[in-house]
Amino acid sequence: MIAAIIGGGVIGGGWAARFLLHGWDVRVFDPDPEAQRKIGEVLDNARRSLPGLADVPMPAEGTLSYHDTIEETVAGAAWIQESVPERLDIKHQVFATVQAACDPAAVIGSSTSGFRPSELRQGAVREGQIIVAHPFNPVYLLPLVELVGGPADDAALIARASEIMRGIGMYPLHIRREIEAHIADRLLEVVWREALWLVKDGIATTEEIDNAIRYGFGLRWAQMGLFETYRIAGGEAGMKHFLAQFGPTLALPWCKLTDVPEYDDDLVDLIAGQSDAQSGAWTIRELERIRDANLVAMMRALKQQDWGAGALLKAHDLRLRDAGGAGEAAPADGIAEDGPVLTLSQTVPLDWLDYNGHMNESRYLEAFASATDRFMELIGCDAEYIAAGGSYFTVESHLRHLDEAHAGDVITIHTRLLAGEGRKMHLFHTMRAGEREVATGEHFLLHVNLETRRPSDPGPQVAEALARIAAAQGGLSRPEGAGRAVGQRP
Amino acid sequence: MIAAIIGGGVIGGGWAARFLLHGWDVRVFDPDPEAQRKIGEVLDNARRSLPGLADVPMPAEGTLSYHDTIEETVAGAAWIQESVPERLDIKHQVFATVQAACDPAAVIGSSTSGFRPSELRQGAVREGQIIVAHPFNPVYLLPLVELVGGPADDAALIARASEIMRGIGMYPLHIRREIEAHIADRLLEVVWREALWLVKDGIATTEEIDNAIRYGFGLRWAQMGLFETYRIAGGEAGMKHFLAQFGPTLALPWCKLTDVPEYDDDLVDLIAGQSDAQSGAWTIRELERIRDANLVAMMRALKQQDWGAGALLKAHDLRLRDAGGAGEAAPADGIAEDGPVLTLSQTVPLDWLDYNGHMNESRYLEAFASATDRFMELIGCDAEYIAAGGSYFTVESHLRHLDEAHAGDVITIHTRLLAGEGRKMHLFHTMRAGEREVATGEHFLLHVNLETRRPSDPGPQVAEALARIAAAQGGLSRPEGAGRAVGQRP
Repeated sequence: MIAAIIGGGVIGGGWAARFLLHGWDVRVFDPDPEAQRKIGEVLDNARRSLPGLADVPMPAEGTLSYHDTIEETVAGAAWIQESVPERLDIKHQVFATVQAACDPAAVIGSSTSGFRPSELRQGAVREGQIIVAHPFNPVYLLPLVELVGGPADDAALIARASEIMRGIGMYPLHIRREIEAHIADRLLEVVWREALWLVKDGIATTEEIDNAIRYGFGLRWAQMGLFETYRIAGGEAGMKHFLAQFGPTLALPWCKLTDVPEYDDDLVDLIAGQSDAQSGAWTIRELERIRDANLVAMMRALKQQDWGAGALLKAHDLRLRDAGGAGEAAPADGIAEDGPVLTLSQTVPLDWLDYNGHMNESRYLEAFASATDRFMELIGCDAEYIAAGGSYFTVESHLRHLDEAHAGDVITIHTRLLAGEGRKMHLFHTMRAGEREVATGEHFLLHVNLETRRPSDPGPQVAEALARIAAAQGGLSRPEGAGRAVGQRP
Repeated sequence: MIAAIIGGGVIGGGWAARFLLHGWDVRVFDPDPEAQRKIGEVLDNARRSLPGLADVPMPAEGTLSYHDTIEETVAGAAWIQESVPERLDIKHQVFATVQAACDPAAVIGSSTSGFRPSELRQGAVREGQIIVAHPFNPVYLLPLVELVGGPADDAALIARASEIMRGIGMYPLHIRREIEAHIADRLLEVVWREALWLVKDGIATTEEIDNAIRYGFGLRWAQMGLFETYRIAGGEAGMKHFLAQFGPTLALPWCKLTDVPEYDDDLVDLIAGQSDAQSGAWTIRELERIRDANLVAMMRALKQQDWGAGALLKAHDLRLRDAGGAGEAAPADGIAEDGPVLTLSQTVPLDWLDYNGHMNESRYLEAFASATDRFMELIGCDAEYIAAGGSYFTVESHLRHLDEAHAGDVITIHTRLLAGEGRKMHLFHTMRAGEREVATGEHFLLHVNLETRRPSDPGPQVAEALARIAAAQGGLSRPEGAGRAVGQRP
């Protein structure tokens, strides 16, 4: 299958990447002499991020080619995507040239943010071939594409376009009645206008506005939208209650002058009915729990990226740790050396569960790996040491699952150093949920030089810490389960 | 420390939960006879979700008590939070009663969505004690709280309030100039008004609007906000380029009648300057890569929850698998039995990297667990079988790390059945990145009855499939590394 991309840039390049990585051959027309470099850079980003969204093999990449004429670019293409500047005269010229050379059965999609199909189609030889296919940056990651046809559309065109969009991993949202700026950009535009006022009036800076979004409703909107979120806010009384409660704000000066619809029973019934159709399969309590699990999963994902709300969580962990928490506190400087060291104490988060209803096996290793990190930190192999070029890599691990752990369980890990000489470190972790022993993790690690990626001796302070702990723990009996092979009889 | 919660409900209950789970004693006043039940339900949700956000121990929960009078509730409290209905006369009454009984040094925060501090303070005996502390539902998870004082505030009050809010894991956003509805609710209100028009005019249903949000800009806004996102959209030319490009839309009918600020050079310079201060530490290319990693991490987190954009990814995986992809295809019905079975083929996603710059050890087990799931599916232990009450639990695992894997590597896993009799299943996975063998995973599983959580024999079709594969693979030599204990000499 061939996709023709008319107009590169951030949007055209994103389209090119999405088609290409889904196995389409992609032909690009863009008179900008920098087009190949720019699209190449978008493609680099896409190759780095898009394939990892899938848990299955991606198709083999298609072939990317650049062409000097629109005619050559569109010949034989099944999908033609226009992403030229937002000027109607330019778009009309492009469509005329495209339609003179393309397969009459091809879909011509326009990336326009604002124009309606009836405007795009003015003067076209085949009106019904041109639709709005409006994507969102980064096009290679975000699934939404708004499809808008005209009143004369046969359903077959939209169905075919939708199927092609789904094939490259997008979510086609068919908008049945054309309107300036479609749907999403209308919402973005009102926020943009209000935000400009806030900055202009000196109420908030751009950063403060961004934080007001990403630490609050932005997280909600990443998983449910406006109405489903408000349905939950209505609580047990549901959507009608919410509508009754917040209706009056339409009369308040909560934003710069806007026109507001008449908020009568008809509108309330319309919204409540649509909300029932959308979300009525779940109770409010179920929706709350779905929302909360989504929020926990996304916030913890951002925590691993150390960004946004996730960066806040990381900072809060340090604050909680300093404050002492409820568990045994690990000594701030140095470690208790005469027994197993407490290296982890946390609550099993919601996103660690799997389809069997308990903590997923890979999360045990995630917890053991955190415990290893903490042990490393305690012996002086901390962030600063690692930044200076040394670290430990795990070479071999053995896990035993002795009992189940569930969301909300407080788990602790205590760590034994079985050996720690030269470049070698041999750890044995015991995980408990409350008093129950639920798992053990035995790990063999090698100290490495992060430059050469080869084994190397640790720095003297790390070696000394290991020697000290090994001597101190030497009197402890060997932990049960250490040295076991999988399936070995006890 | 004592927090007094005046007014339960979804917001008051959320505040109670956040304080309580951070070790504060919480006293609640709410005349609603259902208040204890309602707050109890919010607390259930909070206990299930909040503690798992932390990777460190939470403080021991404080004590929750309900009181019959405001006076008793607020006595000795360091923080008093008012979340009564949005009527100024009611709030004034509450503040009068609170201030007659509370510590003059306590902070009195109001959850008001719309009122300005100068309105709340009318008639107060100590004006400077009352501030807006506006949270976002669910209060126990979302970090944002907008703090608004009055012009007469001393900085010390806001500093103290901010410190308390940070102590319970929130992000205090101090709004320096009071304004109706603060910041976030102004943005929410304009979206709400525009969305009401879209529904009323029959352009879109509530579900379509929600999808237009959560599959597109909602994901962006969960990690960066409006301005930082647009800075990236400006591409290499940056924020000024974006502002020049999208300025003209202010004159277009992209939303229902709104007032727009004059878009002159002063405003452009103000925004571009603030954006530089906010995001100028990163190049556009760096911001793109940060954004993409965040999006991949969040979308994959939602994929595990099978919700929103994550549910779309799951559906797309099935489509890609059916289409065949680029790798060896696993036979649709039955499996190749004369050699190791291909059980996984995917690209290492961005969120699987760790601080050492390679795939984190726990992600190896995540991939091996997926391979085990796929093998189970192939022998008939699929979603339907599991729903009927049988599954396999991993009892013991052994991993060897032989080489590094990085983001973008295509990894495959081939699986050997070392034993499969009765309730036992013994698997050996080999993971390759391209041709390089990077890891092996050896796993011992037991079939369990999901009702009793005890070992049980599998269904006959599963047992037969295992027997068939065991016989067919019987001729293969034992894989290198099988049966190894950690640290054992080769």
